Amino acid sequence: MIAEKMKSMVANSSAIRAMFEEGNRLAGIYGAENVYDFSLGNPNVPAPPAVKDSIIEILKESDPVALHGYTNSNSGYADVRQTVAESLNARFGTAFHLENIVMTVGAAGGLNVILKTLLNPGDEVITFAPYFGEYRAYVSNYDGVLVEISPNTVDFQPKLDEFEQKITKKTKAVIVNTPNNPTGVVYSEDTIRRLAGILKEKQREYGTQIYLISDEPYRELAYDGVEVPYLTRYYDNTIIGYSYSKSLSLPGERIGYLVIPDEAADSEEVRGAANVATRILGFVNAPTLQQKVVAKCIDESTDLSFYDRNREALYNGLIECGFECIKPQGAFYLFVKSPVEDEREFCQAAKKYNILMVPGRSFACPGYVRLAYCVSHEMILRSLPRFQELSREYF
Amino acid sequence: MIAEKMKSMVANSSAIRAMFEEGNRLAGIYGAENVYDFSLGNPNVPAPPAVKDSIIEILKESDPVALHGYTNSNSGYADVRQTVAESLNARFGTAFHLENIVMTVGAAGGLNVILKTLLNPGDEVITFAPYFGEYRAYVSNYDGVLVEISPNTVDFQPKLDEFEQKITKKTKAVIVNTPNNPTGVVYSEDTIRRLAGILKEKQREYGTQIYLISDEPYRELAYDGVEVPYLTRYYDNTIIGYSYSKSLSLPGERIGYLVIPDEAADSEEVRGAANVATRILGFVNAPTLQQKVVAKCIDESTDLSFYDRNREALYNGLIECGFECIKPQGAFYLFVKSPVEDEREFCQAAKKYNILMVPGRSFACPGYVRLAYCVSHEMILRSLPRFQELSREYF
Repeated sequence: MIAEKMKSMVANSSAIRAMFEEGNRLAGIYGAENVYDFSLGNPNVPAPPAVKDSIIEILKESDPVALHGYTNSNSGYADVRQTVAESLNARFGTAFHLENIVMTVGAAGGLNVILKTLLNPGDEVITFAPYFGEYRAYVSNYDGVLVEISPNTVDFQPKLDEFEQKITKKTKAVIVNTPNNPTGVVYSEDTIRRLAGILKEKQREYGTQIYLISDEPYRELAYDGVEVPYLTRYYDNTIIGYSYSKSLSLPGERIGYLVIPDEAADSEEVRGAANVATRILGFVNAPTLQQKVVAKCIDESTDLSFYDRNREALYNGLIECGFECIKPQGAFYLFVKSPVEDEREFCQAAKKYNILMVPGRSFACPGYVRLAYCVSHEMILRSLPRFQELSREYF
Repeated sequence: MIAEKMKSMVANSSAIRAMFEEGNRLAGIYGAENVYDFSLGNPNVPAPPAVKDSIIEILKESDPVALHGYTNSNSGYADVRQTVAESLNARFGTAFHLENIVMTVGAAGGLNVILKTLLNPGDEVITFAPYFGEYRAYVSNYDGVLVEISPNTVDFQPKLDEFEQKITKKTKAVIVNTPNNPTGVVYSEDTIRRLAGILKEKQREYGTQIYLISDEPYRELAYDGVEVPYLTRYYDNTIIGYSYSKSLSLPGERIGYLVIPDEAADSEEVRGAANVATRILGFVNAPTLQQKVVAKCIDESTDLSFYDRNREALYNGLIECGFECIKPQGAFYLFVKSPVEDEREFCQAAKKYNILMVPGRSFACPGYVRLAYCVSHEMILRSLPRFQELSREYF
């Protein structure tokens, strides 16, 4: 009895579910400490203590009717939006004001809001493989067509030649995700400048507006002092989708925001429609207590050294085994080349050693596997001898 | 640049926004205490103290990684779902288990999840006027067609003759809302039995399955000891959408649930798809801290006497003025007959006395106005002389 459109989504989802259940099954047999589950992007760093302190403070100082009530605007509390705008301005030299900010139910909620706001059926949305597979569902929710740029497996920067060729009159938006899930690669400033240049030229050529949607849940997770360019500074029609899931380790609380700058085409109309989309999609408003929390914790950050230590240990360990992998500059994923063409075989072989990884085809990039290193450091250390054994099957 | 589908939604939304701003404008001129804003359904009763205590307890006793992390299932924490199921079983003699419960981002989120799960483009969803106007948007989100049954202005029970005639092969779902927004009427057990009977007969006639979706944010708000029938007991294909927005005064926190009983057609498939819809619509999971809160506060309730006192004062006051109105048995709305045919004129006239009300056509029932009495009791008392003055224009 379910909708036709849901059927493929459900089938796809069952694969993820099966992996999760496989982890539980293996843990039941071998003990949880002997299973190396690298399949999930659930942060393992606790929220900073300021989160807990803030919640208690907010509860003490707020009138519960106001604290837990609907916000006056579906876009969120004015003071919270202003705090977010000012924090971005201080960090990135932007000039946002509260009206540019729409508080959202995480980045996933924000992406749905902006796609609902913008897409007519048949509109094209371009993204660069490898990409987070949910984009396909989000675009399909509004009857858009996801157009994929094939992966550049040399350095996983986007293939801009192919991008230029695939932009059409129907291109309404482009989604980028940097630092990237699943590669951990940060798109360089040079990449961003060229990408912006192509978009500007194509807008002129077709007389259209093309929105660049930057999905930034991993913005704060960048290592070795690498800069993650702030895209509104390179291209006017940029919309940012942000989440506190990783930066404050609050993924379950569903809190993030959209930035719709004044410079974006029809900015006021888009902001107004995003406000309405927030309501009619059923979000209504981002959870109110968590809005107040992120404003209070605006200068807090997660313990990056935790992930960095994992990154070094797992990357070095895998390279020593003979595996090939780009050293990630951000996020908490390694994207490893499968030693056999069909990476599903590789995933299957890894299971013999109780190692769980996600096949690259889930990210439109077969021949690779994703390992999420947002796990305990001890698990990584324990897993390395098992990766050694696995590598001996190939090298 | 916004989507065509959004344009009418935005226009419609501007009317609500304009009313809100009118309230602020009047408050600026006359002082907030001299404006009688009955337009908003934002509860004015604080959350029970147990909510605050629970949050502090949960923060103290939980590992923050688990507390603020993604839930293992997009449908929510297993223990919370089990607690909800058991509470329903104790109250309504049902036999739900955790798999029947999907935790949602409020009832609005829940309705979107179940409509996304069920609707193919062109599928018909029937509802009874007067109804909450957002249903139109929710159904349209999934390209369904909302079929409206005209209002029965005698007692605002649904018109079942017309209902029977309007069910077709394409009818996929029926949405009911009892206690009702905007009338405050509770559909009687007799109504429910007859409605269920018609649905069963039509299912047989067409060889289809028709889901009855019960939108129940006002379930706990019933006065004079009136019973609100629990619909799964009358019709197998019933799906409940519940929200804690009113019962725990947590509308801004976005927490509720769906009940998809074992008895519903293809129950397991529908539950699985609702789980996936929760994720791909961008909700991902209901906010985790609030899931734990509602489980801890499962036996708490809001102070009904607050609303009841308002109901009596406003209802009696209006009747004394000569206005006509059904005495509501639930929710926190009065649906008053406009003394002139076009209720927008009545709303306009009321503004001269700083009284704000919502025209009935927002609920597909012109000729009436909605007053939300989830306001301070003092405001109601202060407003009554103004209603007296208003009434003198008509009687």
